Amino acid sequence: MTSRPARGRRPGNPAITRQSILEAARATFARAGYEKATIRAIASAAGVDPALVHHYFGTKEELFVAAHEIPVSPAAALASLEKGEGSLGERVTRLYLSAAFTEGSPFLSLARAAMTNPTARDMLRQFIERGMLDTLAPHLKAPDARFRMLLAGSHLMGLFMMRRVVGVDAIRNADLDYLVRVVGPTIDRYLTGDLDPAGRTEPR
Amino acid sequence: MTSRPARGRRPGNPAITRQSILEAARATFARAGYEKATIRAIASAAGVDPALVHHYFGTKEELFVAAHEIPVSPAAALASLEKGEGSLGERVTRLYLSAAFTEGSPFLSLARAAMTNPTARDMLRQFIERGMLDTLAPHLKAPDARFRMLLAGSHLMGLFMMRRVVGVDAIRNADLDYLVRVVGPTIDRYLTGDLDPAGRTEPR
Repeated sequence: MTSRPARGRRPGNPAITRQSILEAARATFARAGYEKATIRAIASAAGVDPALVHHYFGTKEELFVAAHEIPVSPAAALASLEKGEGSLGERVTRLYLSAAFTEGSPFLSLARAAMTNPTARDMLRQFIERGMLDTLAPHLKAPDARFRMLLAGSHLMGLFMMRRVVGVDAIRNADLDYLVRVVGPTIDRYLTGDLDPAGRTEPR
Repeated sequence: MTSRPARGRRPGNPAITRQSILEAARATFARAGYEKATIRAIASAAGVDPALVHHYFGTKEELFVAAHEIPVSPAAALASLEKGEGSLGERVTRLYLSAAFTEGSPFLSLARAAMTNPTARDMLRQFIERGMLDTLAPHLKAPDARFRMLLAGSHLMGLFMMRRVVGVDAIRNADLDYLVRVVGPTIDRYLTGDLDPAGRTEPR
């Protein structure tokens, strides 16, 4: 037996080691929640020494931030929404649910942590306000574009929570293509349709 | 000065003391999250000795369960939905959002705790599966009634999360009446409308 590190990784490839730590961090934060996740548990899951985790990423909070940079750039999202099958609402629904339903996506871990941890809540809010609304709302060309996007985003977030967090059967087992067709028209109405057909008052 | 308990409560009224402890528990669980909430902090917020909390409610987990019996009976909800202004979707939206947006409602605390604590998650799932779906789905008289109710419920839960937990401005500041008019038609479609107008496949 040699004294090679666990899992047979060669020592001295920092990029691979960093990536393993980030993946272990996302999995551990998602499973245990922010408060109960420890650097020790994350290091153990990554097969490295806790000191190495501190060396690369600093504190638990800094590691959390590094592990939860949402891997969806608004510009890339916009490009992918401009083409593809179905209505805009169906494309938005598919893009979000595909990402959010994927095992190991940072959404689950971030959403869980945001419930109780102010840093995570600020990250989620900033991702929504700056990352999504500031970038994408101007493309909607509607005075209430932010409100419209949040109606759509709330719905998709709720579906994700019901499926991945609460785990109620009729949603957990639903087929993604069917969900896209059923929910897509709602998202279309919120993004580009008539929000208040009765027109009883103006928004705010 | 007498040795009367804090806040001038008369000793020996167990019903009032129990109620104060339950209110303090909901507030503390909602603010701190399940993991960080302590019996000591809850007792302090209620102005009683921690031993009294244990005496009345047992462990922290038992206290959590006692404090989170959702104060909405499905039968009462059904009765209140059968009359009132607007469409069924508008009435459902108003009933849920009014309850969920209310300061001190157990929804916030339960939703937060459900993210990381298995007991709370089971409570939330059982409330949805048994309390809501088993009782209300038969009234919809549709073969996919549970799926329809969950589409509606996911959307309302997402709005609640975006407003109360994430706190993004355009939803946080939205007027309840306006939200009811905008979201109501979606809930109507999910509960009683044509889910898949294109009819490309059957659900599952």
